[in-house]
Amino acid sequence: MTVKQEVERTPGSTARTKIHRIPDRAVHSSVVRDEILDAGLVAHVVVIDQGQPFIIPVAYARSDDDVLFHGSSASRLFKQLATGEQSTCLSVTLLDGLVLARSAFESSMNYRSVMVLGIPRLLAGHEKTAALRRISDHLLPDRWNDIRPPTAQEEKATIVLSLSLAESSVKVRTGGPEDVPSDLEDPVYRDTWAGEVPIIDSFTTAVPDSLSLETQVPAYIQQWRRS
Amino acid sequence: MTVKQEVERTPGSTARTKIHRIPDRAVHSSVVRDEILDAGLVAHVVVIDQGQPFIIPVAYARSDDDVLFHGSSASRLFKQLATGEQSTCLSVTLLDGLVLARSAFESSMNYRSVMVLGIPRLLAGHEKTAALRRISDHLLPDRWNDIRPPTAQEEKATIVLSLSLAESSVKVRTGGPEDVPSDLEDPVYRDTWAGEVPIIDSFTTAVPDSLSLETQVPAYIQQWRRS
Repeated sequence: MTVKQEVERTPGSTARTKIHRIPDRAVHSSVVRDEILDAGLVAHVVVIDQGQPFIIPVAYARSDDDVLFHGSSASRLFKQLATGEQSTCLSVTLLDGLVLARSAFESSMNYRSVMVLGIPRLLAGHEKTAALRRISDHLLPDRWNDIRPPTAQEEKATIVLSLSLAESSVKVRTGGPEDVPSDLEDPVYRDTWAGEVPIIDSFTTAVPDSLSLETQVPAYIQQWRRS
Repeated sequence: MTVKQEVERTPGSTARTKIHRIPDRAVHSSVVRDEILDAGLVAHVVVIDQGQPFIIPVAYARSDDDVLFHGSSASRLFKQLATGEQSTCLSVTLLDGLVLARSAFESSMNYRSVMVLGIPRLLAGHEKTAALRRISDHLLPDRWNDIRPPTAQEEKATIVLSLSLAESSVKVRTGGPEDVPSDLEDPVYRDTWAGEVPIIDSFTTAVPDSLSLETQVPAYIQQWRRS
């Protein structure tokens, strides 16, 4: 397994985020962690209600050493997350490819993932408005300048939470398959094609709504291609 | 909001999976649910350990009315999930595009998501082997015929779980922005370009490992393009 190990400094590793399984997939670099968070668009967060966990997909953005995300003030689960009474887990997973080995067992996936644990902090006032802008900037830079900012009423209808990256872990798998030696010498399986099939996410042609049919698509939309 | 509502039959809706927030994004169709599960590659599942939830990304496959997924027998969290003592949440989210409205508040994302609740069942024997093949077939049809099946030892190193779709919910958002009427008439914002920027996942050119450099990439790899 070819895992790029960039050991720079441990980003918030604790006993709870220590990676036991295949520890060489663990990456102790806040640079890699931040790159993954900055490349993703959707995070999954957990809310526990009466012992039952629920996963909520959310838009998010990183701001220095915090992850910001928002939800509706009308959402029962989101309100529960905002009480500051429960520790959540937030996860961002980027799937980079299928790893096709010569055996089922060694077949795998290439991915980059970040897991963050902690109690989210409810944002208000200027901090809340700034966080909403930060999430917009993350999803599509420069968009904020073109759109109407939230009214007081709209802000009230939105819960914005901040989760510190203090307790987090990073896992990365890259590269081709790591077949067991006997499969590489096996007369049948040594001739099986093996390697990686990369997966990429891409934005395609913007689809205008009925009022925008005659309007030129702005360059910040047309040219922006997330890596 | 243009949500395609295909009401066919309610797939495992219970009080816990009833969608309260924006209920017209809820889709009560097992056909749509199955299409989403069949289109995804990665699911997120929750394990609660000492009150702290952890999210694990997993490869999975749907088999009729169950979701099958696997992990390592050496994973403490996965072993906990296999005890049959805790109810989990499994979530599959497909991000289809950014929805660019004329206001921050109405800006959104198009997505298809499935959430499943329940206690996973530990698979063994023939059922376990069949599930491993099912997951392989889901990720890449026809691959199983070319690779060495798991040995008894490899199967022992793998935990395979099955989660019934009996308690599940489906949420879908499609189409362009739903701007508030005053923004459509506003002299500044009515000229803001608004619409959808679709996102697609695609497999790119397969990268052979060193032993496969001279080998033709099989058609089932080269031609397979997940929608």
